[in-house]
Amino acid sequence: MTTTILSSKTKEVIIGAGHPFVIIGERINPTGRKLLATEMSAGDFSRVKADARAQVQAGAQMLDVNAGIPLVDEPAILAQAIKLVQEVTDVPVSIDSSIIEALEQGLAAAVGKPLLNSITGEEERLARLLPLVKKYGCAFIGISNDESGISEDPDVRFAMAQKIVQRAQDYGIPKSDILIDPLVMPIGAMRQAGQAVFRILRRCRDELEVNTCCGASNVSFGLPSRPVLNGTFLAMAIANGLTCAITNPLEETIKRAIMAADVFMGHDENCMTWIQANRDPTAAPTEGGRRERRRAQH
Amino acid sequence: MTTTILSSKTKEVIIGAGHPFVIIGERINPTGRKLLATEMSAGDFSRVKADARAQVQAGAQMLDVNAGIPLVDEPAILAQAIKLVQEVTDVPVSIDSSIIEALEQGLAAAVGKPLLNSITGEEERLARLLPLVKKYGCAFIGISNDESGISEDPDVRFAMAQKIVQRAQDYGIPKSDILIDPLVMPIGAMRQAGQAVFRILRRCRDELEVNTCCGASNVSFGLPSRPVLNGTFLAMAIANGLTCAITNPLEETIKRAIMAADVFMGHDENCMTWIQANRDPTAAPTEGGRRERRRAQH
Repeated sequence: MTTTILSSKTKEVIIGAGHPFVIIGERINPTGRKLLATEMSAGDFSRVKADARAQVQAGAQMLDVNAGIPLVDEPAILAQAIKLVQEVTDVPVSIDSSIIEALEQGLAAAVGKPLLNSITGEEERLARLLPLVKKYGCAFIGISNDESGISEDPDVRFAMAQKIVQRAQDYGIPKSDILIDPLVMPIGAMRQAGQAVFRILRRCRDELEVNTCCGASNVSFGLPSRPVLNGTFLAMAIANGLTCAITNPLEETIKRAIMAADVFMGHDENCMTWIQANRDPTAAPTEGGRRERRRAQH
Repeated sequence: MTTTILSSKTKEVIIGAGHPFVIIGERINPTGRKLLATEMSAGDFSRVKADARAQVQAGAQMLDVNAGIPLVDEPAILAQAIKLVQEVTDVPVSIDSSIIEALEQGLAAAVGKPLLNSITGEEERLARLLPLVKKYGCAFIGISNDESGISEDPDVRFAMAQKIVQRAQDYGIPKSDILIDPLVMPIGAMRQAGQAVFRILRRCRDELEVNTCCGASNVSFGLPSRPVLNGTFLAMAIANGLTCAITNPLEETIKRAIMAADVFMGHDENCMTWIQANRDPTAAPTEGGRRERRRAQH
């Protein structure tokens, strides 16, 4: 079984089928968060720091950092956010941008071995980003789409993943430094979106022998009771081989589904993590998680 | 894909990988329910009828009926319970006993095409019960253990399932009338219990091409927050091919996990069932399901 190792200055995180599921906190992302976007543009990173601390406290083993704000100097803001996140927490970071220069400055700012998020199968991006991955010795998320867009056919998406892995190996990047994102589409718009992802995950595990990562929130877009859907989707994806996800650990329903999934994958020895989390009444009440959520919102 | 069809006087239920998950209500079972046991022994079936109605209202497409009370005439009580359940509801029944005579009287009392629960791989039981299944033209649950007990090795349990299917076919019973129960052990006592079940489920689906059924509650024995564990386990089992379960539809957390799993398996067209259940504030509140549970307890 392939293991992917990321690190901060002081901590190592192992991602792999034989290890507990890894949560990469998704909250440091100005997309859809107007207030955060305004503050980050103005150089106010207080919320970034608070979000970083809260997510790690809630169980994120890594943090995704995104600074995608229109009309700003994204590379500079991303680099600064990464520096600050690493000052207030001790977890590895995932450097998240669609702008190559921002990824590059993020890599320069990151300590330890970060995750580069992400590289699609588009030729230009492969050619510019894979040498960066090699240069910095980081790991990266490969996204199974290319110039032609996102295919609905899981086997076409898998072929794209295969191409990314091949190209990375051509640059001397080992499989253990590649996480494939199967691309999670909204289930409300595409009935086979779940089954497609499950199939890609199984093929990545069994045929490509690489680890996988997905953003899970998209799957429930437009539907009611999203946390239950997201948590159930993640548990089913874990059952099909998913090894980590960019998601919200402050959402108790999601976090508990992931913890329960770890129990059933045999990754929670003697169920100690589950028992501890469910014994402490301030950490995880028996039903609904109201107390935890209220606390987390402060 | 194999489909199993059960029926009541007026309704057909289809079990199979291409269909929504089927919940078989588990509540009509005196094991661990002293009051119910006392009432049933005394010929008072009011609670049996109330439990039958409540479970069907909560989404059970079938009802398991068990009358396992020590020192009573179990065959007569089981037969009477089955008759009454069929009077107050219109769903197919699962006739549940470890006593062959009780199963036989249950079969005689049942209307439509019931499910016989269950036949282990023990030679004597195969020899006595398979002819009954053939005679009544019912379906049955085959349990993957035998005289030697329950193996921890999923492949040994699968071999037992294979033997049961072979014997049934020797009697002219088609695969479509066989549901295999992979035997769910407590995860707190056996770390690989989840993975073992997932493997047996996949092999039953891919190699034996039979549908599967399990009792899910056992998996969380001794652990806190059992409904979350049971619901997550079922979702992961569904992702591995499980087609129905004997469980408690009155437990909102479990029911919602199953409904969400149906969404991701592509079995909830346009997510209409999910949207309806989560839109109606009296049927399924956004968080925790408190109202639903309170109502169900009446």
